[in-house]
Amino acid sequence: MVSRVAFQGERGAFSEEAILRKFGRGVRPIPFPTLTEVFESVENGRSNAGVVPIENSVEGSVNETYDLLLTAAVTIRDEVKLRIRHNLISRPSARLADIRVVYSHPQALAQCRNTLMKLGVQLHQFYDTAGSVKFVAESADYSIAAVASLEAARIYKSKVLLTDIQDSKANFTRFLVLGKIGNRKPSATGLKTSLVFSTEHKPGTLYGALGGFAKEGINLTKIESRPTKDIPWEYNFYVDFEGRPEERKVKKALSSLESTAKFVKILGTYPLGKEV
Amino acid sequence: MVSRVAFQGERGAFSEEAILRKFGRGVRPIPFPTLTEVFESVENGRSNAGVVPIENSVEGSVNETYDLLLTAAVTIRDEVKLRIRHNLISRPSARLADIRVVYSHPQALAQCRNTLMKLGVQLHQFYDTAGSVKFVAESADYSIAAVASLEAARIYKSKVLLTDIQDSKANFTRFLVLGKIGNRKPSATGLKTSLVFSTEHKPGTLYGALGGFAKEGINLTKIESRPTKDIPWEYNFYVDFEGRPEERKVKKALSSLESTAKFVKILGTYPLGKEV
Repeated sequence: MVSRVAFQGERGAFSEEAILRKFGRGVRPIPFPTLTEVFESVENGRSNAGVVPIENSVEGSVNETYDLLLTAAVTIRDEVKLRIRHNLISRPSARLADIRVVYSHPQALAQCRNTLMKLGVQLHQFYDTAGSVKFVAESADYSIAAVASLEAARIYKSKVLLTDIQDSKANFTRFLVLGKIGNRKPSATGLKTSLVFSTEHKPGTLYGALGGFAKEGINLTKIESRPTKDIPWEYNFYVDFEGRPEERKVKKALSSLESTAKFVKILGTYPLGKEV
Repeated sequence: MVSRVAFQGERGAFSEEAILRKFGRGVRPIPFPTLTEVFESVENGRSNAGVVPIENSVEGSVNETYDLLLTAAVTIRDEVKLRIRHNLISRPSARLADIRVVYSHPQALAQCRNTLMKLGVQLHQFYDTAGSVKFVAESADYSIAAVASLEAARIYKSKVLLTDIQDSKANFTRFLVLGKIGNRKPSATGLKTSLVFSTEHKPGTLYGALGGFAKEGINLTKIESRPTKDIPWEYNFYVDFEGRPEERKVKKALSSLESTAKFVKILGTYPLGKEV
């Protein structure tokens, strides 16, 4: 049976590109309209895995993914750091000189500002990068183009007028690979662990909660806060660190964290992702 | 001369409501299309102050405001915690029973989901809450309504069909009051300080940077991370704490932070905001 891997967005979204870079063309990417449905599909086992964006190196964290991780019955199995390459995509017979209007997601348009300014085109916002290619492909207008991935151009049988038009070459999105809890033992090669906790709103509690990690020389690679939503100005903290819960020094740090925090939830242990 | 206070959005936006709650009707709120223009107007002195959203108690931080604070030549003078009250607003002669379609910003529609579901109306997304009232007011259609502030209803001479339709009563947005750097001494009643710093990407550096605050028993009220944008997976950390840079224990904590961090920028000292 071919593995089904859930993602959010239209066919050809960057999440689908992350799936192909991670798993190759042997899996079946399944698109869902919302991130909630991706998580649900992994929880109920209808998808074997899900690939969701957690962070972009320019825009920052994807809040909705953090919020869903808090309560979902899924575990993080892996991560993919995908270099975001934007391309100018048109109908097959269009020419660059004819393009007057460019459609894409506002973030994609912003990330290609220099190139698009030089072309002197009008910019129109679209809800989704891959969706803008679909829109251009289905239109009869040769003066419009879209900004999206090469995969989107392939899927909608469109023409790539310009490649790599993003201003910053250091633009990566980090994706998490989600699996059902308990499906598999944590990877023996797992080097990184993610967890979420909250603390009382008192002096030094956040510092105290993280103290064990510093004492044991464990590297924190990310810390993120999100509102609890129930109580204004109280937060859940999401921490990524290098290490596995089975290691002796990590056990010590976690036990120190558990004695300070209101709750601690381990979100997964997985290999450090390479940039692809 | 009447004080000019800059905000982002259409007339009647929640930012304008925050200005009125803070300064009364004796100031002149000046709308700008973008947050960047609000910051610029304060920097170049064309506005006497600016009021910008920094955090919502349900949605979380406003990333763009954090990013602008990093480099802008402004200082935080005050904060306002505004309870977000949504209202169903229509043309003056419309009746509740006639409403079929409701327009507003996606977050506002989501925050009033229960009430809107009971009404059985169709939901249409709009770029801005106050803008949706303007749109309804200028339409000839009596079956449409908008979700926005009472101030928006007043400005566009519209009818308030239902008040306080938000699902959660604990929905606040925290706004910062910005002033030009050096215009005024820090408030003697200032009890809270905001700063931003970054650290080397090494084990324990974040913990070490915050160590002085815990040692001195200084309460951190918020910690937020944002990507540096230059180097993938490196972050700037924004910290709010209770205390003033002139206090002895704060001086000690800051000196400890400065010895660890790549840079430290004090963003302002100001009174603790009340919920209004």
